[in-house]
Amino acid sequence: MAAGPEIEQLIQLLARLPGLGPRSARRAVLHLIKKKDQLMVPLSAALDRAVDAVKVCEVCGNVDTRSPCGICSDPRRNSGILIVVEDVADLWALERAGVGAVKYHVLGGVLSPLDGVGPDDLSIDDLVRRASEFVEIVLAVNATVEGQTTAHYITDRLSGMDLKVTRLAHGVPVGGELDYLDEGTLSQALKARTDM
Amino acid sequence: MAAGPEIEQLIQLLARLPGLGPRSARRAVLHLIKKKDQLMVPLSAALDRAVDAVKVCEVCGNVDTRSPCGICSDPRRNSGILIVVEDVADLWALERAGVGAVKYHVLGGVLSPLDGVGPDDLSIDDLVRRASEFVEIVLAVNATVEGQTTAHYITDRLSGMDLKVTRLAHGVPVGGELDYLDEGTLSQALKARTDM
Repeated sequence: MAAGPEIEQLIQLLARLPGLGPRSARRAVLHLIKKKDQLMVPLSAALDRAVDAVKVCEVCGNVDTRSPCGICSDPRRNSGILIVVEDVADLWALERAGVGAVKYHVLGGVLSPLDGVGPDDLSIDDLVRRASEFVEIVLAVNATVEGQTTAHYITDRLSGMDLKVTRLAHGVPVGGELDYLDEGTLSQALKARTDM
Repeated sequence: MAAGPEIEQLIQLLARLPGLGPRSARRAVLHLIKKKDQLMVPLSAALDRAVDAVKVCEVCGNVDTRSPCGICSDPRRNSGILIVVEDVADLWALERAGVGAVKYHVLGGVLSPLDGVGPDDLSIDDLVRRASEFVEIVLAVNATVEGQTTAHYITDRLSGMDLKVTRLAHGVPVGGELDYLDEGTLSQALKARTDM
């Protein structure tokens, strides 16, 4: 390798990020070196700070710089709605969509017997404990087989509690073209059609 | 935003790397947080070390942890061949290809009057000063209009010196399919055909 071990190691670590491979990691490192003062030094400092600051919320599983996280400790989030997601990325996506005064529960994955993921590997017990504080639980898991299995399992566990348990609507994505949608989505969208 | 300012800032900085946008930067940060001990902490340390260690070689313009760089100070690189490249990335690509006991000269770009890049913005004067130490100068610039203009300009500057000035061969890439190649490449490949 033409560069020193410090640079080589940086490339190897960056190449382990999702979306970057060895080639793009090299490009990224060269870019960092070219923009040393504007990007490399600030990134180094930001990473140092984040390593110290990052915490996983003990209540919901969100990632934040405090625990309980900003969402869990926000008194304005009092709609009584708890949205259950697989992953922190899903929580962030819903927050970007501005879904309102809700709280969240991060499962940390989905049930997947083939991968050896059972109920004890997810934060389902915590969810059942928290559920009584809310009036509605929205199961915002992915529309995959594992996601739906997980949703059904959670619905069973919550049955008998004084709660509404709902799931996200299926339908045509905003901006979506019918021609490119699968039959399952189209038939669900037709079943759930609404008045104009 | 659902996360703290330290996390948000890290996402914004990572999103400025080539190949990453806001969405992939968020995924990368979540991945870092999940793999805190295996990836985030080592990456933070590697970046700190690289910030301190990275130097631009005063002789050739390569990026290394010392100056003159490992290539310039390697006494075994005595073939008398100097390869001129636009960018450090090109140097690294040639090194990966294992091109032999050569040295390099990084121009730092190509002549581009439209972008206001003239000969003084590139390390062409340095190249002319170094050239007399070598027997052959290979102009390994990109096969773009600007690259070829730069190659012609450098050839003019080096004329009159006791030097062979060459360029990379054009032709069919290894593994390439003729059907997908442009006419220019095909006609150059035919002109430069070699015996079986």
